[in-house]
This record gives sequence, C-alpha cells and structure tokens, in this order.
Amino acid sequence: MPTTGTTSATERATTTSAGDGDDLRVRYHRVRGFTEDLSEPLSPEDQTVQTMPDVSPTKWHRAHTTWFFETFVLAPYRRGYTEFDPAYAFLFNSYYETVGPRHARPQRGLLSRPGVAEIGQYRGAVDHAMDQLLVAGTDQAARVTGLVELGLHHEQQHQELLLMDIKHVLAVNPLHPAYRPFERPPGIEAGPNGGATWIEHGGGVVSVGHAGDGFCFDNETPRHEVLLSPFAIRSNLVTAGDWLAFITDGGYREPTLWMSDGWAIVQAQEWEAPEYWIRADDGWLIQTLAGPRPIDPDEPACHVSWYEADAFARWAGCRLPAEAEWEVVAVTRGNPPLVAPEAPSATGLDDAGLAGSGLHPAPPAPGDEQWFGAVWQWTSSPYGPYPGFQPEVGAVGEYNGKFMVNQQVLRGGACVTPAGHSRTSYRNFFPPAARWPFCGLRLAVDR
Amino acid sequence: MPTTGTTSATERATTTSAGDGDDLRVRYHRVRGFTEDLSEPLSPEDQTVQTMPDVSPTKWHRAHTTWFFETFVLAPYRRGYTEFDPAYAFLFNSYYETVGPRHARPQRGLLSRPGVAEIGQYRGAVDHAMDQLLVAGTDQAARVTGLVELGLHHEQQHQELLLMDIKHVLAVNPLHPAYRPFERPPGIEAGPNGGATWIEHGGGVVSVGHAGDGFCFDNETPRHEVLLSPFAIRSNLVTAGDWLAFITDGGYREPTLWMSDGWAIVQAQEWEAPEYWIRADDGWLIQTLAGPRPIDPDEPACHVSWYEADAFARWAGCRLPAEAEWEVVAVTRGNPPLVAPEAPSATGLDDAGLAGSGLHPAPPAPGDEQWFGAVWQWTSSPYGPYPGFQPEVGAVGEYNGKFMVNQQVLRGGACVTPAGHSRTSYRNFFPPAARWPFCGLRLAVDR
Amino acid sequence: MPTTGTTSATERATTTSAGDGDDLRVRYHRVRGFTEDLSEPLSPEDQTVQTMPDVSPTKWHRAHTTWFFETFVLAPYRRGYTEFDPAYAFLFNSYYETVGPRHARPQRGLLSRPGVAEIGQYRGAVDHAMDQLLVAGTDQAARVTGLVELGLHHEQQHQELLLMDIKHVLAVNPLHPAYRPFERPPGIEAGPNGGATWIEHGGGVVSVGHAGDGFCFDNETPRHEVLLSPFAIRSNLVTAGDWLAFITDGGYREPTLWMSDGWAIVQAQEWEAPEYWIRADDGWLIQTLAGPRPIDPDEPACHVSWYEADAFARWAGCRLPAEAEWEVVAVTRGNPPLVAPEAPSATGLDDAGLAGSGLHPAPPAPGDEQWFGAVWQWTSSPYGPYPGFQPEVGAVGEYNGKFMVNQQVLRGGACVTPAGHSRTSYRNFFPPAARWPFCGLRLAVDR
Amino acid sequence: MPTTGTTSATERATTTSAGDGDDLRVRYHRVRGFTEDLSEPLSPEDQTVQTMPDVSPTKWHRAHTTWFFETFVLAPYRRGYTEFDPAYAFLFNSYYETVGPRHARPQRGLLSRPGVAEIGQYRGAVDHAMDQLLVAGTDQAARVTGLVELGLHHEQQHQELLLMDIKHVLAVNPLHPAYRPFERPPGIEAGPNGGATWIEHGGGVVSVGHAGDGFCFDNETPRHEVLLSPFAIRSNLVTAGDWLAFITDGGYREPTLWMSDGWAIVQAQEWEAPEYWIRADDGWLIQTLAGPRPIDPDEPACHVSWYEADAFARWAGCRLPAEAEWEVVAVTRGNPPLVAPEAPSATGLDDAGLAGSGLHPAPPAPGDEQWFGAVWQWTSSPYGPYPGFQPEVGAVGEYNGKFMVNQQVLRGGACVTPAGHSRTSYRNFFPPAARWPFCGLRLAVDR
Repeated sequence: MPTTGTTSATERATTTSAGDGDDLRVRYHRVRGFTEDLSEPLSPEDQTVQTMPDVSPTKWHRAHTTWFFETFVLAPYRRGYTEFDPAYAFLFNSYYETVGPRHARPQRGLLSRPGVAEIGQYRGAVDHAMDQLLVAGTDQAARVTGLVELGLHHEQQHQELLLMDIKHVLAVNPLHPAYRPFERPPGIEAGPNGGATWIEHGGGVVSVGHAGDGFCFDNETPRHEVLLSPFAIRSNLVTAGDWLAFITDGGYREPTLWMSDGWAIVQAQEWEAPEYWIRADDGWLIQTLAGPRPIDPDEPACHVSWYEADAFARWAGCRLPAEAEWEVVAVTRGNPPLVAPEAPSATGLDDAGLAGSGLHPAPPAPGDEQWFGAVWQWTSSPYGPYPGFQPEVGAVGEYNGKFMVNQQVLRGGACVTPAGHSRTSYRNFFPPAARWPFCGLRLAVDR
Repeated sequence: MPTTGTTSATERATTTSAGDGDDLRVRYHRVRGFTEDLSEPLSPEDQTVQTMPDVSPTKWHRAHTTWFFETFVLAPYRRGYTEFDPAYAFLFNSYYETVGPRHARPQRGLLSRPGVAEIGQYRGAVDHAMDQLLVAGTDQAARVTGLVELGLHHEQQHQELLLMDIKHVLAVNPLHPAYRPFERPPGIEAGPNGGATWIEHGGGVVSVGHAGDGFCFDNETPRHEVLLSPFAIRSNLVTAGDWLAFITDGGYREPTLWMSDGWAIVQAQEWEAPEYWIRADDGWLIQTLAGPRPIDPDEPACHVSWYEADAFARWAGCRLPAEAEWEVVAVTRGNPPLVAPEAPSATGLDDAGLAGSGLHPAPPAPGDEQWFGAVWQWTSSPYGPYPGFQPEVGAVGEYNGKFMVNQQVLRGGACVTPAGHSRTSYRNFFPPAARWPFCGLRLAVDR
Repeated sequence: MPTTGTTSATERATTTSAGDGDDLRVRYHRVRGFTEDLSEPLSPEDQTVQTMPDVSPTKWHRAHTTWFFETFVLAPYRRGYTEFDPAYAFLFNSYYETVGPRHARPQRGLLSRPGVAEIGQYRGAVDHAMDQLLVAGTDQAARVTGLVELGLHHEQQHQELLLMDIKHVLAVNPLHPAYRPFERPPGIEAGPNGGATWIEHGGGVVSVGHAGDGFCFDNETPRHEVLLSPFAIRSNLVTAGDWLAFITDGGYREPTLWMSDGWAIVQAQEWEAPEYWIRADDGWLIQTLAGPRPIDPDEPACHVSWYEADAFARWAGCRLPAEAEWEVVAVTRGNPPLVAPEAPSATGLDDAGLAGSGLHPAPPAPGDEQWFGAVWQWTSSPYGPYPGFQPEVGAVGEYNGKFMVNQQVLRGGACVTPAGHSRTSYRNFFPPAARWPFCGLRLAVDR
Repeated sequence: MPTTGTTSATERATTTSAGDGDDLRVRYHRVRGFTEDLSEPLSPEDQTVQTMPDVSPTKWHRAHTTWFFETFVLAPYRRGYTEFDPAYAFLFNSYYETVGPRHARPQRGLLSRPGVAEIGQYRGAVDHAMDQLLVAGTDQAARVTGLVELGLHHEQQHQELLLMDIKHVLAVNPLHPAYRPFERPPGIEAGPNGGATWIEHGGGVVSVGHAGDGFCFDNETPRHEVLLSPFAIRSNLVTAGDWLAFITDGGYREPTLWMSDGWAIVQAQEWEAPEYWIRADDGWLIQTLAGPRPIDPDEPACHVSWYEADAFARWAGCRLPAEAEWEVVAVTRGNPPLVAPEAPSATGLDDAGLAGSGLHPAPPAPGDEQWFGAVWQWTSSPYGPYPGFQPEVGAVGEYNGKFMVNQQVLRGGACVTPAGHSRTSYRNFFPPAARWPFCGLRLAVDR
C-alpha cells in the first residue's frame, strides 16, 4: 500500500499524481500489456498447471491481477460497473479475508475453467473499463490514482511470480522444456571479478525506510533511525563457482553449519545443491527458462533458500547482512532510492530483457556490483513491522502486514523483477525454506 | 488378455481371426476415432487437469492408449519402426513394471507438455503405422491380431475412464461446467417399475467364466464350476428414489449397517449421499456430464462405493449378489455371453449415445432389466483368481493378475461403457471405497 | 459369537453347558489367571507403551478384557452390580459402536492413568463379582454361560495379541530387551524335514465350517458345502531356510512376483526380509521374545505379510491354499475339529509353554506337520461371510461381521495361541500388509 | 553457555568461581534433588508417556540431564570414568549433532526401557561420580566449574519443561488427573489490580544484554546498544478476565486481527480459547496441575501462543513490547539483573512453591508487577543473534545458536521456572504456535 507516515494512500495519490491521468493510463496499458507478453510463449496447458502449493497457474495470475483492479477500483469507483462474472470473486481472490471467501490456494491447478481464452476476455473487459475511468483530468481518475498505482505494482509483483512459477512448472517436467530461448544481448560481456572488495561502514545511527514522494508499499514506512555497529559488506554477489566450493567442501553434509530447522530439511528433502541444479555425468547443469545448460562459475548463485544462504555465510566465516546494513550501503553505492523504469535493463526486466538473456542472472558486467537486476539477496533480518508501522485501513491493509512472522527479508531485485519496480527501500520476504524465487546472497562481516 | 485354458493369446488370435485383417483395420479406426470423439468437447486446459490421484488427464488417456499399440504391437512387429519420442515410454507407461520405469501416477496433472496438439500428432503417427501393418491377409497382420484386439478393448476401457475422470474434473470446479449438453433421444421413455420381481435360482453346481471363441480378458478364465446355494436376485436396479429413502432413514448415521472400514470413511469424509449429489435448498441435485439437475427418483442409484452398496443392502434386509450368482442369472435373462456392438444403444455407448442422453444412467425402458448399459453393479465377491488362473506370459500378464487383492468385483456395464465392450463374463473391479466409477447395485437374498 | 445355524448364543449355552457351572468357574479363573501370568514379566512402563496404531498397551488389554465381562455379563445379569469406574466404558471399549463412544485407538499409549496397579484392582473386582455370579447350578449362572464362554475365548484372543504387541514394543527399542528368557523344554528335538510331502486331494463337494456342539465364533458358521478342484498341499510349513533362498534369489527386488499393492509397500517401507529379521555382519539375526539370536534354517518362516507369502508362493511355482482346502486336509491329517486344551503343548500356549520355548515357532518335531502350534498360515481366501451367515443380534454381533472386507484369512494357530483356543474351523484374519502376528504359510498347487 | 564477550566459559569459571567448590557441590545436589522432588508424585506410567512430539517423558528428562553431566563433565574430566551404559549416549542425546546420532525425538514415548528404576540408578551413579569430582579446592573441580554451572542451569530448564510436559500428559487424559493438589500458601492474597498503569519510556540509545560476572547463556551476549523510540509498557499482565472479553468480542473469529499463519492455525485446530481452557456448561474451566477448576478473572492469562498474544494486542489497540523495551523497563522497576535464588518464592519455583500453589500463575499480590514468577511474556522480537554474537566452541555451542530462526522471544519467567534461574537479560524462545509453555503477555504502545 502506498503510504508515507500518516498520509493515506488516497490522499497521497491526490496530491502527488494530479494531472497525471494520461501518464497513468499509458503506464496502465504498458504494465498490463507486459503481463500478456510474458504469457505469450505459454500454451493453454502450460498456463493451467500448478506443480506445488506455492506455485499458481499462469492463467490464475492473469485473472487475479485483473480481479484486483475490478474489485478495488472499478467496483467502488466506476459508476454502473457490472462485474464480468460473479463467480470470479471466489476464484481469483488470493488472500483478502475482508473481501470474502475464496478458492483454496493448493487447488488452483484443479480448475480447467475458466480457460485461457475466457481469461483473455476478462482482461480485455476490465482494461476497457479502466481505460474509460482513467481519462486525464477527471475527478474520478484523480480519486483512484493511488489505488491504480498500487494495482500496477501489484501486477509487477505477479509478473515476477509468473516467471518463478512457470520456471518450476517446466522444470519438474522430465522433458525439461524451455520457456523461451535466450539470445545474448549485443555488447554486454562479463567483467573480471577481481575488483570485488569489502565496503566498510563505520556504524552509528542511520535512517532507513522510504523517503520522498514516490510510490512505496506500506511495509517500507515509516522512515526511522537504526543504530548500527561497524561492519563491512561485499561489493559482489556470491557466485555459482563459490557455491561449488561449498558443495565440494561438504557444506551440505556438515550439521554444525546449519540452523536446526534447516538441517532437518536438508536431510528430509536430500538437498545437495541449489534448486534447479541437475547433477550430470560430467558436472552440474542448471535449469534455466531456456532449458538446461552447464553452470557458469561467474554467474551469481541463485535459487538458494535462506537456510542455505545462512549456512554458506557461516562456512565462509562471514554472516548475512542485516536489511538496514544492506540499505544504507546500497544508497551510498549510487543506487537511487527509486530505480526508475528508465534505468538500463540490468536493473529489471522489460521487453529488451525478454529479447536478450534477461531471464537468468548474468555474470556481472565490469563495474556492476549487482545490487539490482541479478538476484534477490537474503538478509539476516526476520520480516517484521518498522517501529510505528500502521497498515492501510480496509482490505488493502492485508497486503503486507499479516505476513510479518516466519519470513526473512530479501533486498535488491532480480533479473525477473520488472524494470521500474525496484527501490533501495523495497522489502521482499519469503519463508526461510523457499528456493523457487530468484534468490542469492552477498556477504557481510562485523568490524 | 485373451486366453482360454492353455491357449495363448497369440495362438488364439491366429485361429479365430484369420482373414479378418480388413475388419480389424476398420474396427481399429472406429475405436480409435471414438476416443477422439469423446475428447472433442474438451479444451486443452480440460485435458490437462488431474483432480485426484485416481483421475488421469484426458490427454494422458489419449497418449497412453497410443503408447500401448506402439509398445506392444509396433515396436516388436513393425519392421523398422522408430518410436515417436523416446521420452514417451517414461511418461505414458501406466503400470507395466516389465517395460521399465515410469512417471508417478499422482503427478500426471503436473505435466503441461507434451500438449494436446503434440499428442494429436502422436496419435496420428501411430495410427498411420498401424494402418500399414494391418493390411488384410498379410502374415504380419495375422501375427498381431490378438494383441490389436487386446489394445482395442484396452482403449475402450480407457474411453470409460476418460468419461469418469472428466466428470470428476468438471464436478470439482465451482462453476459446475457441462461436458456436453444432453438431448433426450427420440422414442425412449421410462417404463413403470411395478413389474420388478425376484428372480429365483435353485442353486447347485453351475459353470461360470468365459465360453466360446470371442475375445475375453485373462481374468475371465478358465471357465469352471461353482456350487451355489438357492438364492433370488432382483430384476431391477436400486434407484435414486430407493437411495433417498435410505438417506432419510438415517442410513449414513447408523454404524451397525456398515463395515468397520466403511464407517471410518463415512465419518472421515463426511459422506451423506452418493458422490455427485449436491444438497440444494429444496432437495438434491445431481451433477451429470451435462451439469447439475434435479434427481429423478426412477433413475438408477449411481456413484456409490461398495461400502455404501453393502450398507444399503443390509438396511434393505438383503445382500449383494455373488459374482457367480449375477452371471448365471444374467445369462438366463437373455443376455448373450457376448453383448455385441450391434446391440441397441442401451447396452453401451456409441455415437448415438453421445448424441442422446447416453452419458447418464436412465430410468429403465419398459421391460429393460438393466443388466447392461446403465451402471456397473457391485457384487459381494472380492476380486481374485479363478481356480487354475494363469496370467499371460510377458508384460501383458500384468494387465489383470497383479490387482487381485483389496478390490471388489462389479458386473454388467454402464451407460459410459463403449458398445461392444460388455460380456456376461466380464469382471470389472475397484477398491471398496471407489465412487467415481458409474457404479450402482442390484439386490439378492438367500432362499 | 457362539452360534450354530439359527440357534442363538444364549440358547446354545443353556443347552450345552447345563450343570457346568463349576467347571466354567474354574475355567474362568484359569483363563483370567493366565493373562496375569503373561503380564507378570512386564514393568509398568512396558505395559503403558504403544508403538504403532495396531499395537495396544498391555494394561489396555488387561482392562479391555475385564470391561468385556463387566459390560456384557455383569451389567445386564448381575443384580445390583455397580460399575467399577464409569469412565472405563469410554476408555476400554474397543470397537463396539452399539455400546457407545470410545477413546481413539491410536491414542491408547497416551494414557498413563489408570495405571497398572489400578487396573489390577479392576480385574480383581470384576473377578470377584463373576465368581459370585458363576455359582454352579443357579439360574443366573446358566443364563450367562454362553456369554462367559465368549468372554473367555475373547480373552484368549487378547492373550495372543498381548504377546504380539509386547514383542513389537520390545523390538523397536534399540536396547532389544527380552520379554523372558527361553529354556528349551526337555525331550523335544527337531526332526529331519526329509519326510515332507505333497498331500493330494481329489476335489469335489466338501463340507466346511463348524460342526458339533462345542464353542465357535459366528464367522465359522453355517457349515456348508464347497466345490473344490483337485489340488495338493504341503505336509510342512515354509521354513526360514526357504525364505533365505527367496531373499538370496532377489525375491524382494522382482516386481513380477508381487501384487501391485504389495510391491508399493515393499518399495515404500524398504522391505527386504520378514519383520523382526535384523541384518548382521555375518548373516541374519531374528528378534524373539527372548531377544535377538541367529536364525535357525529349520524354524518356520514367521512374521511375513500376506503380500510376502503370496509372492513367495509365486516364486516357488505354487500358490497359497484356499481356506476350504486347508480345512478339509487338516481334518484328514488327524486334527480333531476341536483341538482340546488337553492336547500337547505343541498345539498352543500354556504354563508349560511359557516355561519352555513356547514363545517362538520351533522346528517341527518328528512327524509333526505343524497345522497348529507354530504359526498362523495365510490362505488365498479373502475374509467374507459364509453363505447364509447371520451375525448375532446386539453388540456382540459386532464381534466379527463388520471386518469382512480388506482382510485375508489365516488358518491353524501359532505358538502364542493359548492352548484350547484352536479349531480346524477357526478363521483368523488380518489385512494383507500385517506382519506383526505370528504368521507364516504352507504351499499348495493345482492338480 | 556462560560467556561474556570473548572470555570463554572455562576461563570465566576459573576466574569467578575459585574457591566455590563446596558451594557448587551443595548447589549441584540441591538442583539435582529438586528434579527428583518434581518427579516424586509421578508413577512409572506417568513418566513414560509422550503425548505430542514437543513433549518428552519425565523419565527421559531425568536421564537426559544426567547424560549432560556424564558427557560434558565426567567423560572428558573424570579420570577413569566408565559410562553407565554405552547405549544411553544414543537414547539421551537431545540434539547435539557433534556428539553423535540419537534416538528420534517424536519416538521417546515408545521406549519402556530403561525404566524408572534403572534411570534412578543412573542418576545415583552420576551424582556419586560428580560428588567425588567436585571436591573443593582441587584442580579438577576448578576446571569443570563453568560446565557444571551450565549443566545446572540446563537442568533447571528441564525442570520447567518437565512440568510443562507432564501438564500436557495429564490434560489429554479424559480422567483429568491432578499432578498434585495445591494448597494456598498462608499470607498471600491477591491485590486489587486498580493500580496498574502505563510505564513511560522516552526512548534513545540503551544497553541490553548480560552485564557483570554471573552466569548467563551465550545468547544473552554480547551486551550492546539499541536505539529505541519512545514507548510505554503496562505495569501488569493481561488477565484471564481480559481474555474472556477478547473471546466474547469474537477475537477468535475475526481474521483481520491475526497474522496469516496464525489465522490458518485458528481454523485448522479450531482454537477458541487458550490451551487448557475447557468449555463447561456454565463458563470456562481451566486445567491446572491440580486438575480442572473455574477460571479466576484476576489470574494472568496463560498458555496462549504468540499468534494469540499478537492478535489480542491488536484487538486492544496496542502491540507486544520488543525484547529490548521489556528489558530496560524491567531493570528500572527494581528487578536486579540476576534474580537470585534467595528472592521470594513469587520469583520462581522451589520447595515452598511446590507446597503452596506455585504451580499455577496467581493473581498479583499488592504491588507485584509480575515481571517474574507468573508467566513468560511474549515479545514482538523474533529470536536472533545479538550483534557480534559468537556461540561457544564445541558441542555446547549447539545450545542456543542453531535455533535462531522461526522463533519468538519471551522474557521474564513463570511460576514453574526454578528459583534462581531468572534474569532480566534471559532470552527464552518458542515457535509462534507453541501454547504448552506457561506463556502470557503484557502490552506496549508507541508514544
């Protein structure tokens, strides 16, 4: 939810976006269209399957993001709007208790209807109504700006989820099909990693959390002070080559490196490498969205759980950074608080990324410290409310706050995070056993 | 597997089918085409979903039946045949240990690829190769006749499974979609049930099991003698109206009517009516392949487990018939040992049934005792080998024998059983808790 | 339940046991005392533990058998009887739905109270009241004879269960403690097995089921005719040495030997030998009630499931006998319909057996075909009602009938079956995966 | 593990405890004896049962604490010591991977042997050897002081666990037996709660963590600075009466009050009140260690999970305190950093508490703010390492560090926490769904 301090989403939207009606309409169609671009290589069968409870079918993502606009924008603000299908509220509500009952999450893959074609019609109908609502300069457009902004960021989150999920769907298939072939983009090449260093920070009282007028989710607020001890953080990500050394050294067989809960999972699920690594006769392959290929030791380690990241850091004689440590250093390294959509494709996925190799974390280009655009980075911080945190009033208040236990914070952004959806204050979060996000790590130490 | 006594399938086929090459080729295409007719109303999404471990996706049925011909006929007997895709042996083997490892059954719904289009191509390629193999009068055609015969009956079994399975897929969907609308066929109307009677049998030594030259599965042999006590069996099926009386009388709440295992399931799964009955404000609806509609008290009770059938019989002061009792009476009631494809549509599903209301068990026409063509009928007999039973040698020997424990025999045939696939000696079997087959019952008593 | 044909338990008891009051009183105390003898080596801790849902704690067995007399004899027939503790009806009812709700079976091991001492008092109080009721020649004694008879056979069944269960409790303990040390009884030695033969039977119509006036359970009735084909059955049991050959030949790794359900369990539970066999560096040990010791190749194979027995028979080119085949041959081999308590200890457990090695199946003495007294013998017969079977009216009618599905029949009796509790018509039954009973097999073939 | 900064446990022990040999020997016997006092009312059966995976049998607690001294003190430091039974290392190791494999936790209740008597002998033998080791003024006594100190605090933790666990064992028994009757201690009476207030704190940089020379666990170090915002915290605990208001207002039915994970458990486990509350016809009973009795609205709410505590705080318009907030205020309210054993019984369990009503949290005496001695108090803080935290080297380093994820911190101490085992810096921790500890809460708000 967009909020800064005590200003509500609606108020802020009115203030900050006045006159932006047309821009918003353009952005609405651009973001919505990008979801369709992502779905385009997928057959109706691909879009239907759910391979584990965490995964949702592609067609569900496409419908759920549409339901979000229908429910929170069109239904309350568009006079005379009639819902596309009354049954959809039950089928496509994800977790909003306030809005009503819903279809059980682990059963999303049991539904063949509505099919891909019907969901395409649903998207079209809602986009048409939204287009009429978002006429620049009108009162109604001004009233909904904050909610539309939220809906677009919500849709961008689901664009990344869609890619995470379809990667899992294709990877469990013994045929190992590709989502789309990669082309290496012209003119980008990996730099030597020799320049990686420790970035020192002297500690003290620092400010973290969202600042300024731009959009943010409610969990990034309020901006507040934190007291840090001196520490250092790496200028580079842990690589696949580093991870091979960890495996070779018996990292997955040495219990003293692991949290107790993590060790239990290592044994129960027989983890011996990151998710999507495939042991081959002559080394390791890695399953990408372009199918399996040999591992590049310079690419960032990816698809590791927090348990693995924490064990790796302990093995390396280091630790994970706290989220505040990550944030204050990231700002000093030249990352603007808002990583704008105009930033180069390395900082997020867009059409160029789709055409290039943007669907897999690449080795760093010379000078790129990969704070954004490669992998989400696990921190040592459990996900909780900032001091003074207040969720939004109403159903959208369920967006973030009710997940603030049993999760760990990740910072940065991944190659599959849509361009324009990253911020230094952004707080992503997953349970410590999750491996299917594009998650890796960078190391820190006490000083 | 076709076998009588010690004659093997291949030998028998050579004997009984010589010169039938062309007929077989015609029948091959008719049966294979009917599978496609059944799949035609289903979208790619419909064909992909698996809603419980017992259910297989439609596209899996279409591929598996094709794999059967490819593996057991084309690979060994068609010179120079190259398999369509080497990965398919792993994906589409159902349970043949002898043939090799296979994809886990409960995970069939996790596979989006190969998709419906590719499976269509697979069917086409195999049908083309089979067509070339089955040239009348050739040696090779004669050699494979028995196996093709088996493959066609196998495919007919899967036609029924396909309908059972898609019924479940559509029924768990909160939208309750229809597979296809029913039209009542002209000229058929339900007869008064007043003429139903007890058919008496004096007991004694009787012969059961397959007789004659036609095709049968190995589990119907050898024909052998059984000693029966005097008994009587009903000339009609238990109806939905009868079942309503059982419900109203508290049948689902009275433990003494139930086997101990059955009562445990009644409580754990909160059974209170047959599968696909839906409690509505003003009575019961029933989910059909044409969607939900009110129950007709004259239609046969259907989708009841053996536990329910057994409890109902006890409540009624009767019992289920033994399979030998069912068979000897069925023969005396004018049912030929082989219910030929030319029999009226009431005895099995064909194109006419699809066009009419053949996808749901109808109230009986005047004089129809419904031994075939309405519902499978549970018997009191556990499924086991006949005295002297020998399974076929080789992989096809796994067809029936290895399931001969923990199952109960059903006799007759259902509205969704393909025409020409029924016999008085036919032994169907399911675990006692299964409800998704089209299964009902007729009553018996001791005399 | 005692019954022959249409004569009820109460009627028969009146007829057959008149004047036996004192004998019954003596037998009551002897049977009840033997339960206490069996419990004597067990500490309160031993008597409390439940190691799997099938196992009940010793103190539960002691209380449940007492509750049986209290509920079915004292409460209805002993004027002015007050139950020992009203809560016990809930705690110690096993499965009698008619009598009321009860504590869940898998949770019996969660109850520390009532303790062993209190259950001793409970047994004493009920025994005292029963002693007063069973005064010879009184009307009340005559009225309850049939039920007391049933209660004593019920208690004998639980004596065997108690031993089966405590064997499991001690065996899962890494310390492998002994229940009691064995002493080999003087004068018994194993005979050479060379004399084992096929016993031929020409088939035809035979009579099976309980005959005569003595006690039997309802499931042994009515006596009826069965038509058999010619067959032969072995004069000896399958031995541990035979089983070693099966293991060595890969019996546990060859799927075609197994029923499909059995093969799934072999893989899921990683079966590679009978229950209680322990792989040691230099061969196999076997866990007995006297602790682990090396296997004797001449001892009967024991603690094999029906799945294993069936697979073994297939491997040996034979089959399991049907229960009727077993019964008719057993009678011809000199086993009386009732194996009386006065028979030698080889046919059942008594004080002599406890003092000797009666707690483990021994190699056969010369000339002993081991129909009784060694191991229960799996048959090919699913457990079902005999033609014309009628369970008793009332709660005791739940004794046998409601288990007549999903189980296989065993015949004979084991070393831990109490003396006087065996009959040629006795039908024991367990699910096909059960291994903790003392169960083995003898082979049969078609002729 | 005892540690301050970089001083190791052994070093510190040498420094701080020189010449305390005899005192330590006295304390050793006092603590060890108190465990036996706690076990005294329990039968062998009571001491054997395990009612859920979190619960351990009493006899296991008694053996495991003994194994701790044997493994970490006697084996390495007592010349010529021979272990009591080599099998015990496997049976009574709780979770020390470094020490070797161990019996699975959820199966502790499957072990009847060793029995209570044998474990008593084990305790005696180890106590005898420890007594000889701990001769005042000897080198060997000095060397082990730190480890013995750790072992005694470890045993005190298990004293509390023993009571938590046996409470669960007795409570699931339908007979609802009492552990021991309570007597109200003379001269203590509940004070009016009217004086409860908000204790204000202005925030700023504060120091938290263990200070000084006394014993602490490694997770309380290093002492470090934290920046707090202004806040207020209640001077009293939430009471059972407060909780009744929450229930009555529908607190267990309103999803917006709950974390998403918590709401899932509320529904799955049908929570409607704290653990051990029993709905009676005329209100609520509460299961205590003296059996069930009506709720006293003035007693502290107890046996609530973190999910419930968090939901209650939200309902009340407040929040839970952070652990640093709790600690700094607790110190200012007159609680010494170490709550010494000489403190009044209200701050911990000892013989007086056993004789009185010390086994259940009492309403506060006048002026008692109940920071200690009533219930553990949930905080908003996830359990993690303090900045600069280093676990001890070796097996005892597994004591705390490997549990630092998926848990929430509790502060204070409960009525069942042994006297002398509480500190303002003490960090207890449990998963957010745990209810069987004696856990309650006090409220906080932002200022």
